Amino acid sequence: MATKGLLMVHTGHGKGKTTAALGLAFRALGHRLPVCIIQFIKGTWKYGELTAAERFGDLLEFHVAGKGFIWKSKDPASDRQAAREGWELARSRIAAGKHHLIILDEFTYALKYGMVDEEEVLAVLRHKPEALHVLITGRDAPPALIELADLVTEMRAVKHPLKAGIKAQKGIEF
Amino acid sequence: MATKGLLMVHTGHGKGKTTAALGLAFRALGHRLPVCIIQFIKGTWKYGELTAAERFGDLLEFHVAGKGFIWKSKDPASDRQAAREGWELARSRIAAGKHHLIILDEFTYALKYGMVDEEEVLAVLRHKPEALHVLITGRDAPPALIELADLVTEMRAVKHPLKAGIKAQKGIEF
Repeated sequence: MATKGLLMVHTGHGKGKTTAALGLAFRALGHRLPVCIIQFIKGTWKYGELTAAERFGDLLEFHVAGKGFIWKSKDPASDRQAAREGWELARSRIAAGKHHLIILDEFTYALKYGMVDEEEVLAVLRHKPEALHVLITGRDAPPALIELADLVTEMRAVKHPLKAGIKAQKGIEF
Repeated sequence: MATKGLLMVHTGHGKGKTTAALGLAFRALGHRLPVCIIQFIKGTWKYGELTAAERFGDLLEFHVAGKGFIWKSKDPASDRQAAREGWELARSRIAAGKHHLIILDEFTYALKYGMVDEEEVLAVLRHKPEALHVLITGRDAPPALIELADLVTEMRAVKHPLKAGIKAQKGIEF
């Protein structure tokens, strides 16, 4: 059996896409393997994971490309600019191949809304360094990305508490 | 909208059930909220997540109830004993209500194989402390558990690299 860097996708409308990415990041960090996370949508630095991430110092590189949820945006041009800058950063980090794992969190939205060029993204992923693992999260992963990926998990919502009138809670949702 | 401790289930045959649990644990730890993890099946302490977990010291309580994968076991009586001890520990920690989040990782197997009494488990979960979050992971969550849960995510395997002849890799699979 071969050892190779995987292209992974967490998609679907259920919970756990970003949370599982975070777990994967911590698993790698626990092995003292360097991780780069670029968050494309959620821009709040209050999240518990960021506080936790600080404990790993130089091993973790964390960037936020977006400033809020795209569907609440009042400034699409600014969102597009943020997405493009995030992708430029991702492309340079992928080419550098210095990380064990690069996570492009909520990146599918940038693809879905045409903020970045899908063909270009696929070409970069197709020619990534052999040993590098890349994980892309977000709803509605485009078919060509799923086709290219080595591992795709769909997080399917069977039950969701927000639909049952329970609000988002610290240490669980964020 | 109400604030309450959730009963959460990560099930399905895809990847990410335990990894998302781990992410949730780190998110809570980042908020300085105490977490208890009881791992029912995988018993190896080499995993990256355990090394990462050490950084949180007293905030994280970690136990391993099982010693290996159940389907490779040559000693079912020992497995059953381990599962029961794990559940007794879980029950006491749930009753104590001192944690923000208690994770019963791969606990569905103990239910599926009748190693613990499902009715008793459901009763304990039904009467857990109001503020406590409990997360149960594993394939084939029983219908009554899904019925009782507030949040259920099915991790569905769309593509899996092990099926494509790529072996499990450090910092990704473990």
